[in-house]
Amino acid sequence: MTTLRVELGERSYDIAVGRGLLNEADKYFNLCRKVFIVTDSGVPKEYAERIAACSKEATVVTVPMGEGSKSPEVYTELLEKMVDFGMTRTDCAVAVGGGVVGDLTGFVAATYMRGIDFYNVPTTLLSEVDSSIGGKVAINLGGVKNIVGAFHQPRCVLIDPDTLRTLPKRHISNGLSEAIKMSLTSDEELFRLFETESVNEDNIEDVIIRSLKIKKAVVEADERESGIRRILNFGHTLGHGIEAMELDRGLYHGECVAIGMTAVCSDEVRERLIPVLEKHGLPTTYSGDTEGALSFISHDKKCEGSSVSVIFVDTPGSYRIEKMSVDCFIAGAREALKR
Amino acid sequence: MTTLRVELGERSYDIAVGRGLLNEADKYFNLCRKVFIVTDSGVPKEYAERIAACSKEATVVTVPMGEGSKSPEVYTELLEKMVDFGMTRTDCAVAVGGGVVGDLTGFVAATYMRGIDFYNVPTTLLSEVDSSIGGKVAINLGGVKNIVGAFHQPRCVLIDPDTLRTLPKRHISNGLSEAIKMSLTSDEELFRLFETESVNEDNIEDVIIRSLKIKKAVVEADERESGIRRILNFGHTLGHGIEAMELDRGLYHGECVAIGMTAVCSDEVRERLIPVLEKHGLPTTYSGDTEGALSFISHDKKCEGSSVSVIFVDTPGSYRIEKMSVDCFIAGAREALKR
Repeated sequence: MTTLRVELGERSYDIAVGRGLLNEADKYFNLCRKVFIVTDSGVPKEYAERIAACSKEATVVTVPMGEGSKSPEVYTELLEKMVDFGMTRTDCAVAVGGGVVGDLTGFVAATYMRGIDFYNVPTTLLSEVDSSIGGKVAINLGGVKNIVGAFHQPRCVLIDPDTLRTLPKRHISNGLSEAIKMSLTSDEELFRLFETESVNEDNIEDVIIRSLKIKKAVVEADERESGIRRILNFGHTLGHGIEAMELDRGLYHGECVAIGMTAVCSDEVRERLIPVLEKHGLPTTYSGDTEGALSFISHDKKCEGSSVSVIFVDTPGSYRIEKMSVDCFIAGAREALKR
Repeated sequence: MTTLRVELGERSYDIAVGRGLLNEADKYFNLCRKVFIVTDSGVPKEYAERIAACSKEATVVTVPMGEGSKSPEVYTELLEKMVDFGMTRTDCAVAVGGGVVGDLTGFVAATYMRGIDFYNVPTTLLSEVDSSIGGKVAINLGGVKNIVGAFHQPRCVLIDPDTLRTLPKRHISNGLSEAIKMSLTSDEELFRLFETESVNEDNIEDVIIRSLKIKKAVVEADERESGIRRILNFGHTLGHGIEAMELDRGLYHGECVAIGMTAVCSDEVRERLIPVLEKHGLPTTYSGDTEGALSFISHDKKCEGSSVSVIFVDTPGSYRIEKMSVDCFIAGAREALKR
C-alpha cells in the first residue's frame, strides 16, 4: 500500500493506492455519517456496495454509463436526491467509477450547500492516473465539454488496482495513453519502462503511482490551471480536435491523445513513441475526418484568441512551450497527420 | 463617492457607493470584453441598459421577478445563453437587481468555465446593505432555499443610492431591518441614529455605508462562514421559521427578521428596538401560524443536531452566542411571540 499526499495547504489530501483497499474504505474516508455514493451502470455493482457496507448510512445512485450523464438534468437529479436523503453540510459524497462519475459527483459535492466533502474511488485506469486528482470537476452543456464546473479538491482518493481486472483491454490502453503522455514531458525513466516492458498486472500499480507523482507535482505547483498545469495538455490540442469528430462513438479520449502526441514531438521522440503506442494498443495515425478535426481546433482556439501555447517534447522527460498562431499549429498538425 | 475595500487576499474587491455611479460603471468594472448582464422584470430596464451602454459587447437577459428564478431551470438557461454568446474564461457577468438576481448571477459566474469575473449592481436596499457582499451565491432546490451554491466573491460592487428612488417604501423597510440588525450586534452609534432620526433620502447613503462596514468586517474575519459570520444570523433563526410560513406571498425577509430579533434580546433592548422597528415600517409581532413557524425551526435545526447557537443582544452594539437545545430555543421563542 502506498500513500501519496497532495500538498495544497488546507485542501491537502491523500491518495491511497493498493490492492484490496476497496474493502477497507472506512480506514481512509470518514464514513461515519450520511454517505451519498454515485456510480454508473458500467461499473460492477459490488464496488459501490462495498463502500456502502462500511458506511454508517449510505445511499447508492447509479447513473447511466457515458458522457451523457454529465448533463444539467442528471446534476439536478442528484442534488434533489441529496435533499431527499436529508444531507447536511457535514455529510459526504463518494464517486465510484471513471471520469464521468468523478466529474459529475465532484461538481455535485462542490455545490451542495456550497461544498461538502468529496471522496473519489476511480475504477478505470484513465481516471486512476489522471482525472481523479487535481480537483477539476464539471458537467457538459450545449455540446461543450466541461463548460460548467468548479475546482473542488477531494478529501481523499482511493485507488484499488484490482478494479482494473474487469476493465476491457481497450480501456487499459486508454489510460496508458495519459501515463505515456506524462512520462514524455516529465519522467524519462517511466518512458523507458514503457519502451522496455509491457504493462501488465504485475507492474501496473507502479505505473499508476509514478504517473500520479507527476500529476501531483503539477497540481501542487498550479492548482487552478494558470501556468505549468498546461503541460498536462501535451497532445491534447490536436487530440481534442480528433475527439470532437469521434464524439461518443468512435475513438476514446486516450486514443485521440495518442495521435495528438505524435504531432508535437521531435522526429527522434516520434520514432521511439510510435512503437510504445503500438505495443500498448494505441493508434498512431488518424483515418477519420482530418480536416474536420483541424477546423474544430481553428474555431475553438480562435475563440480564445489567435494564438495557442503548444507543448513540444524534443527529448523524453522534458518539454518546451511554444506560442504560435493557430494557423501555424494547424499547418503543422496537417503535415504530421499525413505521415 | 465612497469606496470600501473588502480585504480577502487575492479575492479582495472594492464596493463603490455614490449617487449616479450607474452611469460610469466602466470606471469601476472592466467592461472591455463580453459582458453578460442579468436583471429581472421588476427592475427598471434602464439600469441594465446603462451598464450595457458602457460595455464593449453586452447582452442583457431579464429573468422573471421573484424567488422562483433561483431555480435549476433558470440557472441552466442562463448558462446556455452564455455558451451561445460565445463567452470565454476572460469575460464577465454583471447582476443588476436585488438579492435574487445577485445570487443567481453569482452562481452562474461561479460555475461557468469553473469561474469567471462577477460584478454586482444591487438595486434594492436589502441587497445593498447585505446580500451583495460576502460572496455567498446560490439557487434553491426541492423547496430548500440556497441549498445549491458556491462562495464566489464579486470583483467589484457598485451601489448607486439613486436606484432606491423608485423602490416601494415597503422594500426600503425590508432592507432597513438588516441594517438595524447589524447595528444591534455591532454599532451602537448606528442604532442610536435609527432611534433619533428617520431614514430618508438624505441619510440613506450613510446608513448603507455604515452597514456595509459592519458586514465587511465580519466577512473579512470569516469568509466561508465557519465562526463569527454567524452574528449576521441575529434574529434569523425565528425569522426563517416565520418566513417558511409566509413563502412568496406574505411577509418579506426583513419583516420576518424584525419579528425574529424581538425574541433574542434583553427587555431593555426590546423596549428600544420596538419603537425603532415601528418607526421604520416594520412589524414587531406575528399574527400568522406561530406553531407552524416553531415546528419548522424544530425540524430544520434538529436535522443539523439537537442544539442551536443563538445570538443574543443584551445591550446595543454587543452580542453573546448561546448554545442551547432546540427545544429550549423554541420554548423561549414561543414566549416571546406571545408578548
